[in-house]
Amino acid sequence: MSEKTPHDSELAVAGNGLLSRRLLLGLGVAGAAATASTALLGAEDPRFTIPEWSKRPGPGPSAYGDPSPFAADIQRDPGRANPLYPGGGASRSPLHKLRGTLTPNGLHFERHHAGVPAIDPRGHRLIINGLVERSLSFDYEDLLRYPMTSRIQFLECSGNSGALFRDTPVDGSAQSINGLVSCAEWTGIPLSVLLDEAGVDASARWVSAVGADAASMGRSIPLGKASDDVLVALFQNGEPLRPEQGYPMRLFVPGWEGNVSVKWLTQLKLSREPSQFRDETSKYTDTLADRTSLQFTFPMGVKSIITSPSGQMQLTPQQLYQIEGLAWSGAGRIARVEVSADGGRSWADAHIDAQAGDKSLARFRLPWRWSGSPATLISRATDSSGVRQPTRSQLLAEKGQLAFYHFNAQQCWGVDTAGEIHNVYA
Amino acid sequence: MSEKTPHDSELAVAGNGLLSRRLLLGLGVAGAAATASTALLGAEDPRFTIPEWSKRPGPGPSAYGDPSPFAADIQRDPGRANPLYPGGGASRSPLHKLRGTLTPNGLHFERHHAGVPAIDPRGHRLIINGLVERSLSFDYEDLLRYPMTSRIQFLECSGNSGALFRDTPVDGSAQSINGLVSCAEWTGIPLSVLLDEAGVDASARWVSAVGADAASMGRSIPLGKASDDVLVALFQNGEPLRPEQGYPMRLFVPGWEGNVSVKWLTQLKLSREPSQFRDETSKYTDTLADRTSLQFTFPMGVKSIITSPSGQMQLTPQQLYQIEGLAWSGAGRIARVEVSADGGRSWADAHIDAQAGDKSLARFRLPWRWSGSPATLISRATDSSGVRQPTRSQLLAEKGQLAFYHFNAQQCWGVDTAGEIHNVYA
Repeated sequence: MSEKTPHDSELAVAGNGLLSRRLLLGLGVAGAAATASTALLGAEDPRFTIPEWSKRPGPGPSAYGDPSPFAADIQRDPGRANPLYPGGGASRSPLHKLRGTLTPNGLHFERHHAGVPAIDPRGHRLIINGLVERSLSFDYEDLLRYPMTSRIQFLECSGNSGALFRDTPVDGSAQSINGLVSCAEWTGIPLSVLLDEAGVDASARWVSAVGADAASMGRSIPLGKASDDVLVALFQNGEPLRPEQGYPMRLFVPGWEGNVSVKWLTQLKLSREPSQFRDETSKYTDTLADRTSLQFTFPMGVKSIITSPSGQMQLTPQQLYQIEGLAWSGAGRIARVEVSADGGRSWADAHIDAQAGDKSLARFRLPWRWSGSPATLISRATDSSGVRQPTRSQLLAEKGQLAFYHFNAQQCWGVDTAGEIHNVYA
Repeated sequence: MSEKTPHDSELAVAGNGLLSRRLLLGLGVAGAAATASTALLGAEDPRFTIPEWSKRPGPGPSAYGDPSPFAADIQRDPGRANPLYPGGGASRSPLHKLRGTLTPNGLHFERHHAGVPAIDPRGHRLIINGLVERSLSFDYEDLLRYPMTSRIQFLECSGNSGALFRDTPVDGSAQSINGLVSCAEWTGIPLSVLLDEAGVDASARWVSAVGADAASMGRSIPLGKASDDVLVALFQNGEPLRPEQGYPMRLFVPGWEGNVSVKWLTQLKLSREPSQFRDETSKYTDTLADRTSLQFTFPMGVKSIITSPSGQMQLTPQQLYQIEGLAWSGAGRIARVEVSADGGRSWADAHIDAQAGDKSLARFRLPWRWSGSPATLISRATDSSGVRQPTRSQLLAEKGQLAFYHFNAQQCWGVDTAGEIHNVYA
C-alpha cells in the first residue's frame, strides 16, 4: 500500500507538519509495516517460539479485577503528604497514559480537605433542612429506593492548570499540570426530586451542602442550579462511589467547579443567603488585580489540552505522530477543536473521535510529522455555545495574575531540537 | 407534599400495581419522609452525635483507588474451579447491585477457556497473515501509535441466560442467570485500517482470530464484519485492558456474541473458508431439534432483563418499588421497553433513563406497588430495527430445547405471597 500513500505536501493542513486527518495509513508505512520483513510472523516462522504464557493455563475468574502488573506505572500522582494539612491534597489523573473519554474509578482525580473518611453507610444520614416545609432525613437504603438517572460528564477542579497563572512556565507533564479533570458516568437522584419532597420555602435562594469529612467541607449553591440538573450521586461508572469520591453519596453539579460537588454529603440546608463557608472564602475565590475577591465563579470554561505529545515526552525527528488531546466545556458540547504546530500562526481542525454527550470529555486528534525543528503545539476548543478557549494573555487580561482558579487558556507544549517537550508560554 | 400525591388508582398504567412513571414523589411519602419526624435532623437535634469518621482526618490521596470495604459484597461470581478444566469458567457481573449503564472494569464479566495469561506486552505480537499482500507484525508500542476510536457498547456471552432453555426454572439471581453481559467504553484501532495496510487479497472471505492464551482460543469472522466496525481494542473505560479482558489487546466485535471478541489477540489470518476452530465447533454452535448443528449465529438478539426486584430478593407488601432493568440489542438502540406485573396479560411502557448510544446497555424503570398477592414481573424490549424480544415459547419453537446459546427470550420473576422472588416460566 505504501506506493499509494500521498506525500506530506499533499496532506498539509497547516504549518510545521500538521497533516490531514484523512491520513490513516501513513503510520503503518512509517512504523510497523516497515519492520514486517524482519519481524516474526507467527508459527510458520522458523524462529517462532511459544511464549511462556501460552504454554499452560492461567488462573481462572476472580471476584474483582485489577490492572495488569505491566501497567502498574499508570497511576494517579498523589504528591507528597503535608504534615501541616493532614489528609489534604490532591491526586491527578494520568491523562497522557489514558485513551478514550472515560476515567476508570481507580484513576479519577482526587481533592481532599481532610482526607478520606471511612464511612459506614449504616451510620450515615443525608438531612435536608432550613427553609423547607418539613425537614427530611434519609439513610442510604432510603435513597437506593429512589428513581435515578445517569449522565456521562466531566468533573474538573477549579484549581486545575492553576500553575499556568505563574510568571514562568512550570516544567511538568499533562498529568501534573492538567490532571485535575476526569470523566465518569454518574448515577443518582435528581436533587430537585428531594427538594420538592421537602417543600422549599419561597424565600429560599441558596442550598448549603456539607460533607461528613473532618473538614466539614461546605459550599453554597444557588437554588436555581440545585433545582436544575444537580444529582445526589450514589454510583460512578456503574458501581457505588469509591471512598475517595464521596462514598456513600455526593453532590454532582454538572459543568461547575469540582469543589461544589460536595463529597460524603450529609446536609443540604436551604437559606436566603450563602453560608460563606471557610472553603468558599479562604479557597475557591479569585483574587482580582485590585486584590478584591471574586466569589462564586462556578461554571468551568471551555478548555482543551494536548495529552500527546506532551510534557516530558521525547520525540524522534521525521516520525509521524498523532497530536491527541481532550476538550470539554461547562456550557455544553465541544463543537470544534483546532490545533497549531507553529505557536498559533496557523491552525487546522482536529478530528473529534468520541464525545459521549453534553459536558462529557471529547477526544480529538490530528496527524503531525515532526520535522526536527522547534515546534510549539497548541490546541483551542470552541463549545456549543460558540465560546472559544482564550489565549493565556486574554485570560490574564481578564482575571489578572493574582488569580489561581479557573485557568482555561490555551496551553502550549514547546518541542526543542533535541525532541524534548516542555510547557511554554507562546 | 403528601396531600398532593394522587391515589394509585389515578396512576395505574397496567394491571397488578404498575404505576405511571410520572410518579416520582410517591416513594418519599411511603418511605423516607414518613420517618422524618423521628429521625435525627442534624447538629440542631439534641440527640445528634458526631460520627467517628468526621472527628479526625482520614488518609490522603492514593495512586489507585479501591471500592469501599462496606461495598465488598459487590463482586463477580467466579463459581467453583473445575479441576478437569484448569482456568476455564466464567464470572458474572452483579447486575442487581449496579446502577447506570456502564460496568466498572473490575466487575466486567469474564469467560476463559484456559484462564488468564500473564502477558508481558514487550513479548507479545499481533500478526496479520494469510491471504494478504504482505504479512504484518505489530508490537504493543506500534499499535499505540495508531489513531484510535472509542465506543460505549455491550458485550454479552452467547451462553448468557442459557439455563433458561432447561425444562424447569433455575432458582437464581439476576447475576447468576443473566450476569454474562456488561458494558464499557472500548477504545482501539479500527481493524479495517490494519487490514487495508496488509492489503487483503480479493479471494479472502474470512478472518481467523487467535488468542495467546493456553487454549489458543480461535474464532472465524466473516470479512464483511471484520472490515466494518470491529476494533483491535487496547483500552477499556479509559485505561489499558485488564488481564482478564485480553491485555494487552483483544478484538471487539460490536453486537456479536462475546466469544468472537477474541482476547489476548495474537494472530489474524485471512482465508477463503472459516478455520473450524475447536471453539466454534465443540462450543458456540447450536444443536437444533433434529440434532444438526447451526454454526456462526453471531448477532446477539434484542433482550431485556429486570434487575430489581429480581431473584432471591424479598419484598414487603404495599411498598412502592422501582421495577428496574437493562435492555440491549446487537442490532442497534433500544426503542422501547414494556413491563408487565401480571404475567404478560397487561403491559406498560417503562421509562428509559439512560442509553449511551448504539449497542450500549439501556436502563429502564417503572414504579410498582406490590399488593401482597402473587405477581409475575416480565419485561420485553423492542430495538431500533423494530424487532421485539420473543417469549420463551416463541424462542423454543424457533430454536428447539437442545439449544444452549443465544437465549434472549422474556424472563419472568415470580413473586409469591411471602414476597419471595423466583425465576419462573410464564
